Amino acid sequence: MNIDERLANTHFPLPAIREVNQSKHPSGISLGLGELKSFEVDNKIFDALKNSWNNGGTAYTQNAGLPQLREAVAKNQAHEDGYDYNQDHVVITIGVQNAIYTSIKTLAKLGAKRVLIPSIHFGIYKKIPAEFGLEVITYALKDDFSIDLEKLEKLICDDDIFILNSPSNPTGKVFSGNELEALSTLLSAKLTKGYAISDEIYSSLVYDGNGFQSFSKYFNRTIIANGISKSGAVAGLRVGWLITQNLQLAKAFTSNNATIISTPPTINQFAALPIVEGETRETIGKYNKILKANRDKVITLLEKLKIPYNSPQGSFYIFPKLSGLFGSRVKEFCLETAAKENGIVVIPGIAFGAPDYIRISLATNDIDEPLRRLEEAIVNYTK
Amino acid sequence: MNIDERLANTHFPLPAIREVNQSKHPSGISLGLGELKSFEVDNKIFDALKNSWNNGGTAYTQNAGLPQLREAVAKNQAHEDGYDYNQDHVVITIGVQNAIYTSIKTLAKLGAKRVLIPSIHFGIYKKIPAEFGLEVITYALKDDFSIDLEKLEKLICDDDIFILNSPSNPTGKVFSGNELEALSTLLSAKLTKGYAISDEIYSSLVYDGNGFQSFSKYFNRTIIANGISKSGAVAGLRVGWLITQNLQLAKAFTSNNATIISTPPTINQFAALPIVEGETRETIGKYNKILKANRDKVITLLEKLKIPYNSPQGSFYIFPKLSGLFGSRVKEFCLETAAKENGIVVIPGIAFGAPDYIRISLATNDIDEPLRRLEEAIVNYTK
Repeated sequence: MNIDERLANTHFPLPAIREVNQSKHPSGISLGLGELKSFEVDNKIFDALKNSWNNGGTAYTQNAGLPQLREAVAKNQAHEDGYDYNQDHVVITIGVQNAIYTSIKTLAKLGAKRVLIPSIHFGIYKKIPAEFGLEVITYALKDDFSIDLEKLEKLICDDDIFILNSPSNPTGKVFSGNELEALSTLLSAKLTKGYAISDEIYSSLVYDGNGFQSFSKYFNRTIIANGISKSGAVAGLRVGWLITQNLQLAKAFTSNNATIISTPPTINQFAALPIVEGETRETIGKYNKILKANRDKVITLLEKLKIPYNSPQGSFYIFPKLSGLFGSRVKEFCLETAAKENGIVVIPGIAFGAPDYIRISLATNDIDEPLRRLEEAIVNYTK
Repeated sequence: MNIDERLANTHFPLPAIREVNQSKHPSGISLGLGELKSFEVDNKIFDALKNSWNNGGTAYTQNAGLPQLREAVAKNQAHEDGYDYNQDHVVITIGVQNAIYTSIKTLAKLGAKRVLIPSIHFGIYKKIPAEFGLEVITYALKDDFSIDLEKLEKLICDDDIFILNSPSNPTGKVFSGNELEALSTLLSAKLTKGYAISDEIYSSLVYDGNGFQSFSKYFNRTIIANGISKSGAVAGLRVGWLITQNLQLAKAFTSNNATIISTPPTINQFAALPIVEGETRETIGKYNKILKANRDKVITLLEKLKIPYNSPQGSFYIFPKLSGLFGSRVKEFCLETAAKENGIVVIPGIAFGAPDYIRISLATNDIDEPLRRLEEAIVNYTK
């Protein structure tokens, strides 16, 4: 086959998330969002951007990104895990997607063969390694969304890439210090030549439980992926980063990402500074207050409908199990409910490898009407 | 070897451009720049960005980019070559680097095997295809920087990727309609299953000769890469794009780049609108006036020193031949001259595959003092 023939035979299947979003009726409301779209954006972010416009904001930065931002990220991370980071440990990326892409690309070039991802996972963890011909293997989560360490121990090889996501999309689980420590004990014994990639993009959005801890505090072969999309409610700015204690690895990330994007956009990095430097903490507090209130309302509804769930402590999702009500028709339910007049969009769990569940986003300033619709939809569909 | 051993054995050689820039003495001046760093940025650009901040500018766009921007790009391109483009033909990228990366990545996945690049070329044309295991072959340019079509005809295969760059970095050559037509005649006969990628990032910066023409006007299997970095003097905003007449190919670009970056940054795309919509034309006129005046001053110096050159018509470089003076010591000259007190940075041609030349950037608001230094440096080095 030549290029055009291969192209004609290429299909672009709609991911389940987009399939549901596209089937949404114009009168529908969405609890399918992956961003804090309607949330207040702290004024300090725009001020920083504005101030940079005539002060280098329109010129190239270094390939690894703006030194000030990398320094601020390094300082934060040092505070998290006690390691003595500096800007050379940090590489700025186009959001966490580009961070994961570049880290996997780099590790694949260095000979990595397998990637272990949670059985319930954000879709890109599967899609990106496949680009580089890596084998993707899921490790089992228990019913409470914690990791089944016994099974993991049998599964893992010494040179694997292990992906962790806490706070989790879609489960809302935040791993406790004890859990991270137990995981680290296992990985320290077993993952001696591989790396963990810890996607910590929801680290600022923890509204319950013991709070967030970075996995690098427990396991030093951790590559951290993070960014401002969720902490700043500015997903559209596309600022993320990678941090590693291995300077040579950071160099490799920089080199690989320079080939892909040259440099990350400059004003966006200046805009990220107040968020990373903690100046928008108060606004983040408001987000968490809203998210917690929304979670509590969803839980009230789930209790009422006798739908099993685990109470999330962070990120902005809750991931209840609907297969008890709908059997294998959970995705069908989501599609039909989205398409109805005055419908409601929630994401079928199949988008995350878990067909028994749905993902409800808490990222809204008004959850009452959407929940009224969701209740009606569930009740009607059960009949 | 395991991952860490491979990493320890990975070297990150400094590209020649950066090697020279890093050797610059603090008192040095640079004529090595690849951006219009000191040039006036049109106020309309910031206004557009500012207006978007509370109007979607901080939220995600579609994977292919902001519909308004894609529509504006489509309209412009339709004006260039008469094809009936719409937003579905356009994919927004992180500058032209990401545009070239994604187009080559996509074509490699579709089975492309070889990439033909000009013998004098911007470095990424060589580096990116190598990422995907493609064979990179240079096609010969004549002494006047035009393409040696006779040699090209013998070289090219029907499914190659052919890269064109006009206006050119580093030569400053702008291909005329006649030249593009002759090239198109050859490619139409020979490149029946492959594609041309036309890097037209300097299309707005043409200050002499017959003006710019897009290669897609002549050859419809052309993938156009362009952006606002040069036309807006805002390289740091990192907004570029790909355009193709093949909708399925545009879909493939979108899908591939979504895996890499998810979506391009939103405010940056709003900022690009006034540039693409022609509202900053007057400011671009000022750039071209400065560039032409700078070119004329450089030419005066080159004539005085009897250094052979071709007079550029566009982009912001001139690429004189210094091997007559320095033999094989052209790069050495550049490094030493950059490192001297009150030195001057120019880029050795080896960075572009042409060791006999140097690249002088015209992107400065004050070229007199740098040229005085350059003259002194050349005269001293010749002694």
